[in-house]
Amino acid sequence: MERIKEDSFILVYRDRRRRWIVRPADTPRLHTHLGILDCKELVGKEFGTSAKTTLGDELLILRPTIEDMVMKFSRRTQVVYPKDLAMILLKCGIHSGSRVFEAGTGSGSATASMAYMAMPNGHVYSYDKNESFQAVAKKNLDRLGLSQFVTFKLKDAKEGIDERDLTAALLDLGDPWELVPNVRDCLEPSGMLAAVTPTTNQAERLVEEMKSRSFVMVETIEILMRNIEARAGMTRPANIMVGHTVYVTFGRKAV
Amino acid sequence: MERIKEDSFILVYRDRRRRWIVRPADTPRLHTHLGILDCKELVGKEFGTSAKTTLGDELLILRPTIEDMVMKFSRRTQVVYPKDLAMILLKCGIHSGSRVFEAGTGSGSATASMAYMAMPNGHVYSYDKNESFQAVAKKNLDRLGLSQFVTFKLKDAKEGIDERDLTAALLDLGDPWELVPNVRDCLEPSGMLAAVTPTTNQAERLVEEMKSRSFVMVETIEILMRNIEARAGMTRPANIMVGHTVYVTFGRKAV
Amino acid sequence: MERIKEDSFILVYRDRRRRWIVRPADTPRLHTHLGILDCKELVGKEFGTSAKTTLGDELLILRPTIEDMVMKFSRRTQVVYPKDLAMILLKCGIHSGSRVFEAGTGSGSATASMAYMAMPNGHVYSYDKNESFQAVAKKNLDRLGLSQFVTFKLKDAKEGIDERDLTAALLDLGDPWELVPNVRDCLEPSGMLAAVTPTTNQAERLVEEMKSRSFVMVETIEILMRNIEARAGMTRPANIMVGHTVYVTFGRKAV
Amino acid sequence: MERIKEDSFILVYRDRRRRWIVRPADTPRLHTHLGILDCKELVGKEFGTSAKTTLGDELLILRPTIEDMVMKFSRRTQVVYPKDLAMILLKCGIHSGSRVFEAGTGSGSATASMAYMAMPNGHVYSYDKNESFQAVAKKNLDRLGLSQFVTFKLKDAKEGIDERDLTAALLDLGDPWELVPNVRDCLEPSGMLAAVTPTTNQAERLVEEMKSRSFVMVETIEILMRNIEARAGMTRPANIMVGHTVYVTFGRKAV
Repeated sequence: MERIKEDSFILVYRDRRRRWIVRPADTPRLHTHLGILDCKELVGKEFGTSAKTTLGDELLILRPTIEDMVMKFSRRTQVVYPKDLAMILLKCGIHSGSRVFEAGTGSGSATASMAYMAMPNGHVYSYDKNESFQAVAKKNLDRLGLSQFVTFKLKDAKEGIDERDLTAALLDLGDPWELVPNVRDCLEPSGMLAAVTPTTNQAERLVEEMKSRSFVMVETIEILMRNIEARAGMTRPANIMVGHTVYVTFGRKAV
Repeated sequence: MERIKEDSFILVYRDRRRRWIVRPADTPRLHTHLGILDCKELVGKEFGTSAKTTLGDELLILRPTIEDMVMKFSRRTQVVYPKDLAMILLKCGIHSGSRVFEAGTGSGSATASMAYMAMPNGHVYSYDKNESFQAVAKKNLDRLGLSQFVTFKLKDAKEGIDERDLTAALLDLGDPWELVPNVRDCLEPSGMLAAVTPTTNQAERLVEEMKSRSFVMVETIEILMRNIEARAGMTRPANIMVGHTVYVTFGRKAV
Repeated sequence: MERIKEDSFILVYRDRRRRWIVRPADTPRLHTHLGILDCKELVGKEFGTSAKTTLGDELLILRPTIEDMVMKFSRRTQVVYPKDLAMILLKCGIHSGSRVFEAGTGSGSATASMAYMAMPNGHVYSYDKNESFQAVAKKNLDRLGLSQFVTFKLKDAKEGIDERDLTAALLDLGDPWELVPNVRDCLEPSGMLAAVTPTTNQAERLVEEMKSRSFVMVETIEILMRNIEARAGMTRPANIMVGHTVYVTFGRKAV
Repeated sequence: MERIKEDSFILVYRDRRRRWIVRPADTPRLHTHLGILDCKELVGKEFGTSAKTTLGDELLILRPTIEDMVMKFSRRTQVVYPKDLAMILLKCGIHSGSRVFEAGTGSGSATASMAYMAMPNGHVYSYDKNESFQAVAKKNLDRLGLSQFVTFKLKDAKEGIDERDLTAALLDLGDPWELVPNVRDCLEPSGMLAAVTPTTNQAERLVEEMKSRSFVMVETIEILMRNIEARAGMTRPANIMVGHTVYVTFGRKAV
């Protein structure tokens, strides 16, 4: 059973809005408005324990999941939501050995999730033409120890994609239809293209382009997730929900 | 670039309702109401090609994804839908090296998906007390070459779970609350329990039991997926959608 | 308390799929695959009673609501669904005294619902250029005794709307944007335009046209309705639901 | 064409969050953080005009709909949302002449909407045991000129409902199942009971009680409404939506 180490990430949790991810090595003392938490003292303990702040407030100490990690990334761009990313990972079948193209890198949250699923035998190739975005993403991936499974390229994928015979490609940029010919070149036969677009107009234009470029089984989906407040005798859905993030379009390369 | 072999699974696709998964070795000639397809002739060709039946109908020949495969399993039980399973895989962070408990095995569709994500370094332990269900599941996994990553046990998990320090557990049975104490024992600290339940009453009872057994960050969600028919100038959601499958409950083991 | 008369409409109900609306005067004996029901014998009884067919099957005899009636109309066109129509009626505030424009008439289901709400002091003006559609609608309204509250016009509203100072207008045709200037002329200041469109492209074009023609508070909504199967200890949403009917756009005339 | 009078209600509108409903007689000058609006000067103008504040900000002057009015009621209780109320009004067929029971009165928003639809020939009987709630509701209805169509009773409907042969009944209280026998007595045969409940547990208990008390065609629904941001080339649903308000249960009285 793994115990908390100096360089383990720990999820310090009070409730949905008050949660932190830190490492004892970097953050020996975590300052919160609930008091100070001594993270050094947690080293050697089990994950799942709880600890008190200097103000006597009790906080849970958990091992962060990959979802916890990427939702806490420094970000300058909108991230792909877990509800959408989950479906992309399953439909593309990303697992150890998968080789995946991505554009753009953004904050690296999808990059990290895909690298996590593709390791140790797979790899992610992530293109972005914005240097500052990619610098943030690289730092995010470095901290997670996932950089060895990712090749970052500071490049506009419209000018060409260097890789060949990839398992899948994820497009998260404003004009994904512009990349369809190049993505086609980089995918293995029957390889999967996935793209996220906020508007119906983008989805429509992308689908038309994919169909005209020999992508088959092209489909667009929308995923809605609702929290259910399950409590004895008082079960009901949450009052507020996310009404929209993106449409997700999938298609496979035919030859 | 991998080409179609004698023992490759191929997805023969016409449209959403007319699709088959076969291996040339087992099914040299595929008989459909669209005519007969000579599968032997496909050996050596690329995935993504198309082929004509004896009646002149053109069919796509694709490499099936893990989603395609499990949705075609022989089944005697309701399967976990991809929209729900995807979220479980991501939230539990199942990837190479993960060690996962499952009850019940059912048709093995979740078993196969989890094994696919956990290979080559992880493992799935799948319990079911119904011998005939598990026999079908075993056969399904064997065909996919995933059996080496799964240990099937013909056992009621209420009588005890043999494993310890597992990453995650998936419960898909009528009374998941009965298993909470044993699941707690088999999980590593901070390990994730996921459970699917069709009714609100089951979700409610499960959540109460989990909270009383030191599970934390307990949450129940509902996922709706809608197909969007994206076409130039005529984009609209599909008329009919799946209105409900299951509620999915998550929680992490505290110590 | 009103009792069943010769010319009362009665809703004969077994379940969601087996329901009929008839009048004893027209249908003395109702032939169903559950046997024959003697409707003449029901005259003088209370609504809410039940009656046996010749095969011994028990059927409920209820007074049909306006929703029951219009959903059973003879139809050659798609009808506006109750979930969408209900919101239109409330947002437009259609009640006794309201004067409403409609194009096209279609099967008359929205016409009948609006006339029912606007009676006895209001009126509906319903335009359609298709003679056979309007003939069916007229017959539907006649049977309901609502014709006195409706003026049907066999006319393309693009060529002009004769009425002025109307409370509200409902557009249910393929190119509602073409009618915006004429609808503007027929509405009273601050009057409400409501339109239903199946595609996002139509909603988009309509909204742009309305905004450029001094309509204000323009908004488009989408309504989803799901059946819940509430049963002791087994409550859950229905498996299948309607995923999409139309987008509904509203706006008010500014001067 | 009706013009703005001293005692007309006017909707002063800037955007979804900045809207006011006032009467020039009561509020000659409307003070807002966008400046002061001279409402007296609006008298004699058409609805649908716009007017400038002292700070030069332009505001729309519209005729409020019944929906606008009730959503601006003083309230001490949760109101029935328009999406739910609309469906209740249509399913119950509330129009001129309908006679409706309601418990509880709450802020009177449903009371006002039902009275508006039932006038001039119908009536609403609204029971509440909380004096201060009903006082607020009465004042709300008085201002709208709808009081003549409503009889308020300061009474617990569990102790009996005085009316008979009503068209429909709306229940909006925590334990609607307790009222089912009395509601049954007050409804005409085939009359409709509608009830709103936030939790699945309440819906479940209500449905069981209704079925055991000879209500038929009992059904529970859930309505979701999503705003669509329709704009040229950038159409998409709104990011945030209301995830849940209430379940709505309907049933008809059999004899």
